[in-house]
Parts: sequence; C-alpha cells; structure tokens
Amino acid sequence: MNFHVDSEAGRLRQVILHRPDLELKRLTPSNKDDLLFDDVLWVKRAREEHDAFADTLRDRGVQVHYLADLLTETLAVPAARELVLDRVFDERDFGPLATDRLRTAFEALAPAEMTAHLIGGMTKREAVHRLGAIRSVRLHTLAPDDFVLAPLPNHLFTRDTSCWVYDGVSVNPMKKRARRRETVHFEAIYAHHPLFEKREFRHWSGGQADHPSTIEGGDVLVIGNGAVLVGMSERTTPQAVEALALRMFAAGSARRVVALEMPKKRSFMHLDTVMTMVSGDTFTQYAGLGLLPSCTIEPGADGDKLTITDHAPQDMHHAIADALGLSSITVHTATQDVHAAEREQWDDGCNVLAVEPGVVVAYERNVTSNTHLRRNGIEVITIRGSELGRGRGGPRCMSCPVERDAV
Amino acid sequence: MNFHVDSEAGRLRQVILHRPDLELKRLTPSNKDDLLFDDVLWVKRAREEHDAFADTLRDRGVQVHYLADLLTETLAVPAARELVLDRVFDERDFGPLATDRLRTAFEALAPAEMTAHLIGGMTKREAVHRLGAIRSVRLHTLAPDDFVLAPLPNHLFTRDTSCWVYDGVSVNPMKKRARRRETVHFEAIYAHHPLFEKREFRHWSGGQADHPSTIEGGDVLVIGNGAVLVGMSERTTPQAVEALALRMFAAGSARRVVALEMPKKRSFMHLDTVMTMVSGDTFTQYAGLGLLPSCTIEPGADGDKLTITDHAPQDMHHAIADALGLSSITVHTATQDVHAAEREQWDDGCNVLAVEPGVVVAYERNVTSNTHLRRNGIEVITIRGSELGRGRGGPRCMSCPVERDAV
Amino acid sequence: MNFHVDSEAGRLRQVILHRPDLELKRLTPSNKDDLLFDDVLWVKRAREEHDAFADTLRDRGVQVHYLADLLTETLAVPAARELVLDRVFDERDFGPLATDRLRTAFEALAPAEMTAHLIGGMTKREAVHRLGAIRSVRLHTLAPDDFVLAPLPNHLFTRDTSCWVYDGVSVNPMKKRARRRETVHFEAIYAHHPLFEKREFRHWSGGQADHPSTIEGGDVLVIGNGAVLVGMSERTTPQAVEALALRMFAAGSARRVVALEMPKKRSFMHLDTVMTMVSGDTFTQYAGLGLLPSCTIEPGADGDKLTITDHAPQDMHHAIADALGLSSITVHTATQDVHAAEREQWDDGCNVLAVEPGVVVAYERNVTSNTHLRRNGIEVITIRGSELGRGRGGPRCMSCPVERDAV
Amino acid sequence: MNFHVDSEAGRLRQVILHRPDLELKRLTPSNKDDLLFDDVLWVKRAREEHDAFADTLRDRGVQVHYLADLLTETLAVPAARELVLDRVFDERDFGPLATDRLRTAFEALAPAEMTAHLIGGMTKREAVHRLGAIRSVRLHTLAPDDFVLAPLPNHLFTRDTSCWVYDGVSVNPMKKRARRRETVHFEAIYAHHPLFEKREFRHWSGGQADHPSTIEGGDVLVIGNGAVLVGMSERTTPQAVEALALRMFAAGSARRVVALEMPKKRSFMHLDTVMTMVSGDTFTQYAGLGLLPSCTIEPGADGDKLTITDHAPQDMHHAIADALGLSSITVHTATQDVHAAEREQWDDGCNVLAVEPGVVVAYERNVTSNTHLRRNGIEVITIRGSELGRGRGGPRCMSCPVERDAV
Repeated sequence: MNFHVDSEAGRLRQVILHRPDLELKRLTPSNKDDLLFDDVLWVKRAREEHDAFADTLRDRGVQVHYLADLLTETLAVPAARELVLDRVFDERDFGPLATDRLRTAFEALAPAEMTAHLIGGMTKREAVHRLGAIRSVRLHTLAPDDFVLAPLPNHLFTRDTSCWVYDGVSVNPMKKRARRRETVHFEAIYAHHPLFEKREFRHWSGGQADHPSTIEGGDVLVIGNGAVLVGMSERTTPQAVEALALRMFAAGSARRVVALEMPKKRSFMHLDTVMTMVSGDTFTQYAGLGLLPSCTIEPGADGDKLTITDHAPQDMHHAIADALGLSSITVHTATQDVHAAEREQWDDGCNVLAVEPGVVVAYERNVTSNTHLRRNGIEVITIRGSELGRGRGGPRCMSCPVERDAV
Repeated sequence: MNFHVDSEAGRLRQVILHRPDLELKRLTPSNKDDLLFDDVLWVKRAREEHDAFADTLRDRGVQVHYLADLLTETLAVPAARELVLDRVFDERDFGPLATDRLRTAFEALAPAEMTAHLIGGMTKREAVHRLGAIRSVRLHTLAPDDFVLAPLPNHLFTRDTSCWVYDGVSVNPMKKRARRRETVHFEAIYAHHPLFEKREFRHWSGGQADHPSTIEGGDVLVIGNGAVLVGMSERTTPQAVEALALRMFAAGSARRVVALEMPKKRSFMHLDTVMTMVSGDTFTQYAGLGLLPSCTIEPGADGDKLTITDHAPQDMHHAIADALGLSSITVHTATQDVHAAEREQWDDGCNVLAVEPGVVVAYERNVTSNTHLRRNGIEVITIRGSELGRGRGGPRCMSCPVERDAV
Repeated sequence: MNFHVDSEAGRLRQVILHRPDLELKRLTPSNKDDLLFDDVLWVKRAREEHDAFADTLRDRGVQVHYLADLLTETLAVPAARELVLDRVFDERDFGPLATDRLRTAFEALAPAEMTAHLIGGMTKREAVHRLGAIRSVRLHTLAPDDFVLAPLPNHLFTRDTSCWVYDGVSVNPMKKRARRRETVHFEAIYAHHPLFEKREFRHWSGGQADHPSTIEGGDVLVIGNGAVLVGMSERTTPQAVEALALRMFAAGSARRVVALEMPKKRSFMHLDTVMTMVSGDTFTQYAGLGLLPSCTIEPGADGDKLTITDHAPQDMHHAIADALGLSSITVHTATQDVHAAEREQWDDGCNVLAVEPGVVVAYERNVTSNTHLRRNGIEVITIRGSELGRGRGGPRCMSCPVERDAV
Repeated sequence: MNFHVDSEAGRLRQVILHRPDLELKRLTPSNKDDLLFDDVLWVKRAREEHDAFADTLRDRGVQVHYLADLLTETLAVPAARELVLDRVFDERDFGPLATDRLRTAFEALAPAEMTAHLIGGMTKREAVHRLGAIRSVRLHTLAPDDFVLAPLPNHLFTRDTSCWVYDGVSVNPMKKRARRRETVHFEAIYAHHPLFEKREFRHWSGGQADHPSTIEGGDVLVIGNGAVLVGMSERTTPQAVEALALRMFAAGSARRVVALEMPKKRSFMHLDTVMTMVSGDTFTQYAGLGLLPSCTIEPGADGDKLTITDHAPQDMHHAIADALGLSSITVHTATQDVHAAEREQWDDGCNVLAVEPGVVVAYERNVTSNTHLRRNGIEVITIRGSELGRGRGGPRCMSCPVERDAV
C-alpha cells in the first residue's frame, strides 16, 4: 500500500495530527505575535479537545498518527538524527562558540526527549541546567528565560508543513520564520520513518532548500479529477505554484492547477480558512471572500513549460468546475449579516475536514455555518474548540491526510 | 438599609452583573480592537458561563442584580428616560437632520427594547427598518451594517463604570471612547431606580461631566480601615484621584488614599488585573508587577487641601500596610517561570472576587495561581471562563459590589 | 471694510500665517506621532523658509498677519485673557490642586510670553522654575521634561483651525486631541482683537462647543458662485457639514454645498492635500484620488431643512461644475507613474495657494506638478520647503485667508 | 599599496560613496517603510548635497570612489557578471518560468545600464517593455508599477554593506531583506575590480553565505591599538561578533573586541548613530545612550577559542579605554534638554566622519552638537543635509573608508 491523497472529500484513511504539548505552554502574551498566535491557550484543556478530535476521526475509521511519535521513532535512526541536527545547529544561528556544545547536548538526549525539545524549544535556563555555563557571546546576550531554541507551536497545524497531492508529497518551505524549523521534521520522517521509507511516492518540493519559494498546505486543495486548487496568499508564492505544477505535470500525476489570487492579509491566511470542500462537487465558502481573479495552469505544448489562462473574478467558480470536468459546482455560504459572517470566519467556520463525501468535522461554535451545511444535506460532526480555536485554525488546519480515496 | 462597600474581602451581599447579550454578538475581528476586545466570544457559551458565575455567587448568599434589568426598570421612569436620551442623542454626534428622528424612534421603544439597543447598539439597517429612509448626510455616509449607535460590549465589566467606596459611589467618566456611553446608564439607575432613589448615599464624582478627569473601578480597591488603594493607570488619572480624595475626606468617609504609579500599558490595564485582595490583610499579586512608586494622600492641615507623601518603590507594600494600620501585609505571588506567570496574568490569574474573607471566585484555567492560593489557606471557587475570559477580565472585573461588609 | 472670502482663487488681500517657533522645537522623534508630525524640523531653517513664503505673499500685495502677534494683542484684552485661560485651565485636566496655581502663574505673564507658552507649551521643569514646587498628584506623576501644557505645533497650519466662507467664519472644533486647544485662540482673536471686534461678519460654528461635530479648514473650498466644496474626511464629519450648510443657507450666504466622501486615511488627511483650485474653473488634483461618491446639499423646500442629492463617483466633477453654474470644469493631473505621483502628493504637490486667478504659490520640490501647471498656463511661484515640507502641509495648509475677492 | 583601515579618526585617504540615483526616486510614502526609509527624498537636491559632501572630502585630500562606477567597471568582467547574476536571478525568487528570461535580458544590458537596474530596480512595466510579455505566474500577479527587481535605496549607506577592519574587509550579510542584495555587489567589486583584485587583503566574513549571522558596518568602530568596538544591535548579531573575533585573532590583525549590548530598537539602529570617534582617544556620544553592559573578547589560551570578560554598564568607557591601552577616554555629550538631544540624535548629531584626528564632517543642522564639539577643540566641517538627512544617516553612514591611517 502506498500513500496518496486523491481528493479533499473522499474517504479519509490515515492522517497525521500533533497533540498539544510543551510548545504551546511556551506561548505568552509577549511572544505570541512573533509565534503567530492571537491568544494563549490553556494547554490541558486544549489537549482534551484535541484528544476528542482524534477520537472523532478514529470513530470514523481514520488511522491517526501523531507527529511527536513519528518524529521520535524517526530520530532513533542515526541518519535522520544527523539530518535534523545538522539543519538545526547551524553556526550562523548559534555562533562558533556554542553550536557544537549545544548539538552535543542534544545528541545525548533520548529520542523522546529530543522530540520534546525540538518541538517545545529550550530556554537558556534549561540549556545551562544541562550543559553548565557555556563560553559564548551568543548565549551571553540572552536572559535566563529567553529561548536558545525557539518552540514550534504551529506544529499544531500539520496541514501546512507538508501536503500530499495525489501520489506525492510536498514538504513545504514555510513563509514565516517562526515555522521554518518545522520543515526538517517532516523531511526526516518521510525519508527515514519505517512507515514511509520503504514506500514509493513522489516528492513535489525540495523542502527547506526551496525557500523563499514558499508554499503551505492550507493553500492547497486536491479537488480531484487530476486537478489542484491553490491559493496564492500571503504565504504561498506564485513561483512555488509554478514549480509544483511543473513537477506534477512531468510526473503525470495532475493535469491542471487553478490558482487564485488571494488578498495578502492575515485574515485570509490560507485558502482553507475561507474555502474548503465538503463533497466531490461542493464547497463551503466565507461570504466575505467574494470572487477572485484566477488562472488555469496546464502543461505547455512543448512538454516542459506551462500554459496559463486568465480568468476574471466572476469566472472563478466556473474555472474550478471546469477543472473538475463539471458544468458547475455548488458553493454553500450561509446567509448572515456582515458581523456574524466575519465572526464565524474568524472561528474557522469554513475550515471543515471531510471524512467522507458529505460528512465533515467542524467546530461546534460555528452554529450558523454548521446549520447551513446541515440544511443542505451535509452531515456535520462537531468538536469543541474553546481552546484549540484560539490558535485560529480549524479541523482541516490541524490535520495532514496521508491517505485518502478519490470521491 | 443603605448601600455601602466597606472592604474588598468582607462578606459580599449585593452585586450588579451584566449578562452577555446582543452587544457581544456585535463584536467582529474588524471592530474588536476599537471596542477594546482582543477576541470575539461565542455568546451562547459565554452566557452559560456567566450564568454559572451568577449562580456561584447566589450559592454564597449574594443577591445578584442584572444591569439590563435595572436599566429597563429605570427607563420606565420618564425623568430617567429623558436623562439618558438627552445624553445619547446629541446633535453633535448625529447631526441636525437625524438626531430628532432617531430620538423619537427610541422614545417609542418599550423599556426592555430600549435597553437592548442602548447596550447592544443599532445598525443603519436596523434603524432604516424602523424609521424608513432618513434625509441625513450623517446617515448617508454609513454602510448598511455600520452602527448608527455603537454597541457597549464592555458593560460586561460592571466593575469599572461605577464603584462603591465606603458609603458613596463614584459614577465614573471612562477613558476610552468605546465605553463613554456606559456612564449615563449608571447615572440614571442610581438616580431613578426604585432600589436606589430613596436611599441615602454619597456621590464621589460628577459622572460623565467630569471627563477627561477619568477614573475606572478596576483601579480602585476599598482596602478597609478608611483607606483606599488606587492605581494611576492608563485609564485612571491623577486629577481624578485628587478629586476623589478631596470629596471622601470632606465627607469623613475615608482617611487615606494610597496611589500607585502604574505602567501606562494595556497589559496593566487596571490595578485589579495585577493585584487584588483575598482577605483583610492579604493580597494576590502578579509576579511581573514588581514594586511601584506610590504616594499617600491625606487631608491637609488646612482642611480643604491635601497632604502628599512620596514612597519609593520598595516601600509600596509598607505604605499599604500602614494605611491599613498594620505592621505588614501578606502578598501571595505564585512561583512560576516568566512565561507561565505572564500567561496566567493574561488570563486574569490575580483578578479574583472575594465573597467573604479568605474565599474567592477565580477562573479555573489559572491552575498555578489557584493552587498557590489554596496552599496558603484561601478557599478558591472556580468558574469556567473559556469564553468569558476572552474579554480579558476576571470575576472581579465582571462584578460591581453595592453592598459588602467590612472584614 | 469687512472680512470675507469669496473664492479660492480670486485676488488674495489678507491672510493669517503662523511663524515657526518654540512649539516646533518641542517636536522629538518620540512625541512627533502624538503631535501629528512625521518628522522633526530644523526650526531655524524652517523659519527662514517661512519668512520667504510670507515675503512672496507680500510681494503679491497680500497683507500678512501673524497668529502670534494677533494672539498677543488679543490677550491684552482682559475678557480675551479670561476666555482663553478659563478654557485652558480646567480642573478636569490639571486637577483640583494645581489648576489655580498654574492659572495664576499664567495670568502673571506678559501677553507675549503668555502667547509663547500657550502655543509653545510648558514643561514641568519650566513650571516648577516659575512656581516652585506644587503640591499636586497630577504634577507629581510627570517627569521633569514632560509637558504640563502641551505645545501646539500644528498652529503652523492656520488653514484648518478657522476658515472663512463668504461673509462668515467657521472657528472649527478640531478632530485630534493634539489640535483642540488651537480653537480657543481663534475664538478669542475674532471676538476681541481690534482688527475684528468692530467688524460685522457671521459665525458658521460654535467653536470648541461644537465638538465632536468636527470640521477643519483644509477640507473646505470656497469655490464661488455661492457654492462650497467640502471633503468629508477623517477629520471633517458629515454632521458638521449639515450644520454648516444650514447656517449658511439660513443667512443667505451660500446656496449649495457639494460634499465628497473621502477615504478616511491619513494620506488623504484633508481635501486640499489632494485637490485645490488654481483659477475660477480649474483645479489641480492628485492622480491617486480618483473619483469619489458625492452629494449636493441645498436648502429644503420647507426652509429650515435640507435637500440632499446623491452623485455616483463618475459624476463628481460634473456635480462641482454644476454648483459653479458651469457646464464643465478643468482638472489638471500631471501624467506620472504611480511612484512619482505618490511622491509629489506626499510633498503637497496639489496643495497650492492661489494669490490671484491663475497664479499660485507651490513648493519648488514638486517639479512635475509645477511643470504640468505651467504648461497649462498657470503661473507657479515656488518657495523652498526642505524643512517646512516635513510638516506634510503646503502653502494652502499654512495660510488662512481672511480677505479674498471673488474671481 | 594595500587597502587597510587602521583607525576611526586617522587620516582618511580613500573612501567609497554612493551618489543618489534612480533607487531613491523609487521611494514612495507606501513603500518607504519596507525599504527602511522614514521619508521620501527630493533626489535632485539630495544629489547636490551629496556632491558637496564628496567635494568636502576631496578638499581634504580624500580620494572618492563611487559605488556605481566600481560596480559598472566590475560588471565588465565576465566572472563578476556571472557571480552577480547567479545570485540575483534565483529560480526560488522569480520562478521556473521567468528566471532565465529575466537573466538573459539583464545579460544583454551594457554594464552601466546593468548597474542602474541592479541598484535602481526594475518595474514590471519596464521589464515588459524590454522583454515583451512573459508567460509566468510569478509576473502575472504583479501590477504594472510593482517591482520585479526591488530597488536598493540603502546603498546610499556604503558604511554598512562592507567594512574594513585593519588589513581586511568584512563583506556583510545584511539583517533586513531590503538590503540583502547589496552584499553581492561588494563581493564582486572586491573580487574582480582592477582596483582590488591584485591587492592582498584579508576577508573577515563569507559574505551573503554567512546569513543569518548578520553584521553591519555601522556597528563596527576600528578604534585602534588592535582593538575593535562593536555594537550588538538589532542588526549585528553576537554570533557574527564571535566569528569576526576568531578570524581577526587567528590572522593576528586584532587583539581585542569590545562588544556593547545595544537596545534592539530602530532609534539605536547602529552604534554609529549614537557614538562615533573624533580623534584617537575622544568620542562623541548621544546623551540618551547611557551606559551599556559590555564584554571584552580576547584570544583564548588554547589558540582557537575565545576568552570573554563581562563588564557592568558603568564600566563601559573604562573597557574601551583599556582596549586602547589608555587609562581613560574623553566622551563629548552636549548638555541639552531631553527634547533637543533626542532631536539631534534623530538628525545624526553623533554620526560624524573624521577626516583626520580632531577634524570631522557633520550635518550643519545639528547646531548644538557641532558647537559643543567646537568648544572642545574639534574642527567641524558642516555639510547640508536637508534631503540626505531624511534617510536617517549622517556622514559616517554614507561613507566606506578603504584606506585610513592609524592616528
């Protein structure tokens, strides 16, 4: 059996989640903005909510893998440990005096503990506790509770760091500094974890080496029929879309990319915060998104280059339908006043995760959006998100499908 | 029986709360900053949490009054309605063409509905629905979902708009534009509501007329022994502290004010977000507050003026003890690392409401602070605040005691 | 002879300017944003440039009055001094302990010195130097170089604080806190200065008492033919436009107001930063302004109310022409790329001051705009603005015409 | 003759400047913040002022090289052109479809024109004008006046991008994205320009490859006696200081580094904005800098590592004196009130360029600082900076000495 994701709404079989841990306890009112969070979470409660989310998926027959487990198992492999520590402990970050000392200290950690600190970060106080004093100007300038190694709280959103598109995976270079170190964890897992190392699948990106040609999974929808819908957002660049299209077309894995020009604003962070798919021909969309300019990208006549066809904003839905081989698509947008619609988008009203065609997981708080979907025949399974939701990401953001059927 | 608040931690007998309603549904990601909120709340859940908070107080023998009920009953009195509508419908806000039309429309509302819109605001769409088109340049420039009358979501924090200090009340002019209209509601209630109109009590301020000499209840702690502790914060001005002291001293209601010079930052919004009282000689204080410069204000030798005595930061706690007639006070600060302490302050870890000496109501999420208080013999009754807490205000912020015994 | 301004581009006869002084020396990188400046000025050089500006006007036969001279002469009148000091020394600003002491100290100043500090402000150090220590919590909380009385650097822009419209003057309540105290200076001058007190002219506003119905002169263009063009900007409210229209129509001084809905952004601060008039039927307009929605306001059929007629954006220029009784107007916009156009608007390329029809004063640095006007037959007299221009206001902003002929 | 810089204040013999050109015309109110400018400049006038600055240096016997000339002459060398274009035209920036097309177009440019666009940038309109339409999603998403290649207006500050320290040069990786492309221009010049290619000098950094171990010349003062004073600022990292020290010590070119912990704020952007050297033992320092924690870095006993000695803030000046082998240093700080001092620092009052011991070039506008230096026996040659100064950099920032004697 190989890994593949052939749709957005076909039966979901395997998924990678990340259970909230130390990295979220590191969030404070002072550092949250740098770490891309709007609020701090009560981690104990967030973990309960996340466990319930995982159980909901298991109840639907989905096999759940946890990132921390995968990473720990991966770090047991010497070559994987090498790959990760080489990338993390760079003299240009830690200075010629401290880098080796820090790396040596990490090498001495058991894999589980190594995972805990790679994801949860390490303060100077913690480092000194392990290592004793280190002669280093770099460390010298830090206060005791400053981070020597920053935490990665956005690992919660496993959707973004890697994304499977048909029979391959894109391990993504991330736009924001606070997320860049996430990438190497997935590079190591897909290369060295027993679950993946013997399987055959394609690679749609060069990982961190592709930076600054950034792309994030929240902007990538595998809509089916050999088509992919991509949002060119604040975080997903057009050059990465070009590269993705070239590689998929060359492999024969996809035939068409529809690229939307999204507003470059935090409130439209990723395409899936404003638009997701609930069945093979049906989407849920935020009222405030409107219609966007788009283009269709197809293989060029000469083989290695591309054909680009523009679409005016009013043709956005038609371009998507056409890519699906349909005459039209259905788009659900709950009728709400401006205030209510904006509130539910903020709470990820559109960020649902389909577990099979017509069955989606959503936050319970988005009552209007959920009711609207139900009235239109979609089964909506709700989960609590009083804490999880403070991270501004919903069920789709928090999941990385690695095996999903076509619709 | 007269209203009076003789301490911070004596037996609490009567309190005014405000149950979340329409005004909080108006919050959106776009307007929340102007409306002084960091997040939008799920109002249905917030109301459940608030109801549980009220029940907790009732279980402890506290009589709970709701602001909306008090205001509705007050608006049944013609003079009160006149007072409120005169203040709200000012030609300088609504323009010569629309003011009378809007006021007439409000006058036609039943008291409960009038309360709903005074607190919850009114959009242009709602106004036009009631009034038909209005010939007005002022209204003309608004979009349909813009507010003709802004909502007052901060009414949730009844602590601030008025505060009882010994045998009188200060109806406070508020610092921020988004809260100014709250004041007249309390002016009307204390002047015209049957519960208050026949009682005798003193007035420590001139209400809205005192603006910009602003003071807010979150900065005022009635520590007992004729003393008052005031934080001079971003919102409470030194000139208001002078005026309060003069009035209280002239009435013989208080003998001393200790004024703290707080950092003028949103994270130290009010004194009670970093320091509250849990019994007659015991405080809980945020680790990050540190010690502040302060001064003691007493009646001057010549009767109508004041004596001011400076204290260096290290003497802050001594100045408070001295005002209480004690040789020292006890201050509880949980030992936490910088990150954890900052997180709990953000979640109002110190913003507890005493219901009797040594018994306080706190948010459940502040586990470290609560455990620390319990280990020091304080009974901590926890309430949920997954939604309420998003408003950045805890049990003390959300309550206005109108009757409380001395310790 | 009475004061009146009958056009934007007719012969200019008398104007009020303000020569840069102490208030601009108070600007620092830290306080400039609060004081509404983008940069600090080298005052000595700014004064040289301003003197050259005044000489340029005098060379064209314009009589120049300086605000500081007018205010000093006005403050010699006891009733004027009373009016100003009553307004400035309000207990709600300075507290019950310090207000009288400060006022008494100001009363003791000679008029010229009083003017210097009313406009230039006073630090705590300066106050203490004059008064000795003051027992005041309010003053106690200030550092030595903090301002007891804030400076008014925006007095440089005499255009805004009062504006003459046909045979009357609007003494304007100002939007921003940093400019509010400017108003009373003009109230006092127009009421008590010998130049004005015996003359008959109308009053289009109630001065500071009209706040928050704010309007600023930079948004008011007296385009002639009994018409007025007003920008409803960040600073000029629709309710003030209604009030101005009602008063002018009642007096028979104007027949029509055309009100533009401007973007509410700092870069479009006032209408005259993006559009001014260079002759009786010709305007210069910033390329980036585009066409705006507008409405025409005329006296209502019933006498005391107004008729409002909407115009779509594309009809903006037609609405202005119609108000002038013309079939069309000429609008000059230099052809530049986006970058160059934006640069010149920033440097007040459109903010020219006509001294007679077809003759304008402009900053020399706006080479493209000036060349464009010259090619279209306008005489452009340039002045230096290397320092003045850092205040983000051009020749029109820095001048308050009090006598100007019709075209 | 070899290049070397043996002091801050010894006789200056050769310097690299950059004459303002196209890149500064690209600045607009909208893009200036991203491009690290506070204001837009009138380029024609800025160039006049800059020419006068260069003449002032020539009058003092300094040979002036212009960056644009050096770069143009360098680009005539095929290997240099290769180096630069390889670095600039990276597929990860321009995408697989457009990169080669754009690079080919640049290769076709004459060297002078190539320099003009490498420094001045290129808009999409300009690119399309040269190339015709390009099939590229990356270019497709740009508006006509958007930059395909961003301009480099900060090249004006030649001080930062490379800095000579004794007998070697550090070609610096820059902190801010807006300046990163500057580095390769200096890499190419020092490697391939006839003036440099045959000379022997050392290299203290790996250029752009060292990123994110950033260091900028404005933070590096070659104080003499084998000592270097470095500010660890927002832009200069401790790891880069470590690397610099190791390399210089290994070469025997320096014996000691004194590293100051600067506030990480834009107003203290580089050390030389708050402190420069005016003779062999004398500094001029901004009053608001205060005393900073510092450390002395020396070669370790074991040869390849370092010894680090801490100093408390009050020992800062002593640590500098000790590095110079002196018992004390002289530090000039003009006595001014807080406001005036802050104003002159903003206008680069301390950013003077010594041309020989006791003779410095300064902006004329900093009257107080200049007078203070003169009263202390320093000869101050003033230059105009009404436009240049808007870039927030003074004579030292705008110059890169490549040959300077010891004092």
